[in-house]
Amino acid sequence: MLKLKDIQTPIATELKQFEERFKESMRSSVPLLNRITQYILKQKGKQMRPMFVFLSAGLCGNINDSTYRGASLVELLHTASLVHDDVVDNANERRGFFSINALWKNKVAVLIGDFLLAKGLLLSVRDKELQLLEIVSEAVEQMSEGELLQIEKARKLDIKEDIYFEIIRKKTASLIASCCACGASSADAENEQVALLKEFGEKVGIAFQIKDDLFDFGMDDVGKPVGNDIKEKKMTLPLIYALRNTNSSEKRRIINLVKNHSENKEKVAEVIDFVRSSGGLDYATEKMLQYQQEAFDILKSFPENIYRESLEQLVRFTTERKK
Amino acid sequence: MLKLKDIQTPIATELKQFEERFKESMRSSVPLLNRITQYILKQKGKQMRPMFVFLSAGLCGNINDSTYRGASLVELLHTASLVHDDVVDNANERRGFFSINALWKNKVAVLIGDFLLAKGLLLSVRDKELQLLEIVSEAVEQMSEGELLQIEKARKLDIKEDIYFEIIRKKTASLIASCCACGASSADAENEQVALLKEFGEKVGIAFQIKDDLFDFGMDDVGKPVGNDIKEKKMTLPLIYALRNTNSSEKRRIINLVKNHSENKEKVAEVIDFVRSSGGLDYATEKMLQYQQEAFDILKSFPENIYRESLEQLVRFTTERKK
Repeated sequence: MLKLKDIQTPIATELKQFEERFKESMRSSVPLLNRITQYILKQKGKQMRPMFVFLSAGLCGNINDSTYRGASLVELLHTASLVHDDVVDNANERRGFFSINALWKNKVAVLIGDFLLAKGLLLSVRDKELQLLEIVSEAVEQMSEGELLQIEKARKLDIKEDIYFEIIRKKTASLIASCCACGASSADAENEQVALLKEFGEKVGIAFQIKDDLFDFGMDDVGKPVGNDIKEKKMTLPLIYALRNTNSSEKRRIINLVKNHSENKEKVAEVIDFVRSSGGLDYATEKMLQYQQEAFDILKSFPENIYRESLEQLVRFTTERKK
Repeated sequence: MLKLKDIQTPIATELKQFEERFKESMRSSVPLLNRITQYILKQKGKQMRPMFVFLSAGLCGNINDSTYRGASLVELLHTASLVHDDVVDNANERRGFFSINALWKNKVAVLIGDFLLAKGLLLSVRDKELQLLEIVSEAVEQMSEGELLQIEKARKLDIKEDIYFEIIRKKTASLIASCCACGASSADAENEQVALLKEFGEKVGIAFQIKDDLFDFGMDDVGKPVGNDIKEKKMTLPLIYALRNTNSSEKRRIINLVKNHSENKEKVAEVIDFVRSSGGLDYATEKMLQYQQEAFDILKSFPENIYRESLEQLVRFTTERKK
């Protein structure tokens, strides 16, 4: 099993320095704000997004000040979106910590998200990072569009595979794509290289989200089916595939379970069983590996070096992770 | 009584054209999003912020494409902040319409706010409006800081007048200041003029918020005291002044009413009576007029023309409005 620590080797110093700069970028004159951002900083995530930024920059040229700003920008934005996500999902926990909305209420959480977004902007505007800003604001637009498209489609349960891909491309893959594009752009890569790495990030992001969606059909720590997406009537690839490949009476039965009985643990387990036995997991896994392969293929047009190797490992990490 | 329509005369054509461009700026490929933005556009506000942008541009030079982008940027941002405000305040209504969170739930409302913010960014980034972006992202930072400072201070009720002014300067005045600065900057004004108009907007914004806070001590349509701020334990200028000018036992009594009985209509009315009889409303009105005068004084350094006249009227409108 790949370890993040090993993948980070070529950029270990940069990531350490980045942490300091990131902390600095959140500073405010309002004490409550500093208490909350301190709390956020304690819950260090995997730093996957900054990793994509630094590795992409290394692959295309030199890691420089602009790369740090790109990494801070995407990480501020990502943090803002997580805080807002917890409000919209009414989540009480994140990474084993209480969520901001759980500790300080929704009001504060919405404002903190806006504050972090503004900080990211200011950082880039002051240093005249127009290209980074363009790359990232496009991602912000797509992320909200993707989430809203998902909400819209969740009401009707007859979602098609192409819509599923549009949703995950926008809500998840656009940010990872923008990380890679920011990294490349910060290293003054040619437009063509920036575009290629953006496409690479998009493929990785799609594979990443399929992996996430597959987890929902697994078992939790105590061996119970997870099924959170089903509870929320989110139609993901394994279920979409399974429904497409069954007869119409079985389809009606399963849709009825999702529509009207998704609060019932046993009924959710029934849906999961149906997806498993219809080959839905195998199909989604195959698709995921296909996107992974497309990502690898794009990397092949770049020179072979330690950054490229780490990027390949990072891609593998996203599809092989256990949670 | 001044009428907005009359104040708008020098920029009537521009405001009409702005409406079209603003509608355009919200367009999305997601049908649900378009339905919601259509709904938002139906609830046309007073357009005070675009008015400040256009009038400031007219005062400093020529209204041009950049002015329209500045107006769209602040209006998108303002709309986003209203949608988020309704989520944080759990409000069901806005301008006589149901709020977005009331019709589409919190989840959608938070995402719509983020989407509108991103649209504003994209608009300015694509047209390389770095100065507008810098002016406006500073305002976004300050708006969230101001709101958070207010929340922090609301817990302790011994807020001082200087903190009150810091809060309203950040949460309200910073956006109006940025409107005037954007207008001036779009017309290629000298930095000094941009700074002066920014200061002008800040004075107006502070007067505007004091006026808003005074309304809370008035009567509603059926002649009952309003007192919403007191209910939420928001300490505003009239109450801060009244508490400062009373003996310590009366101070304890009033603070106890706000702290422990703000749900009770009669107790809230008691607080309002106390503020009225202690001269709190007179004091706040005087302060408001002082800021208004400072705003007028700044305008005097600009040439006398139809834009300056309209700006003066607009200032008067904000302090003389009846709601």
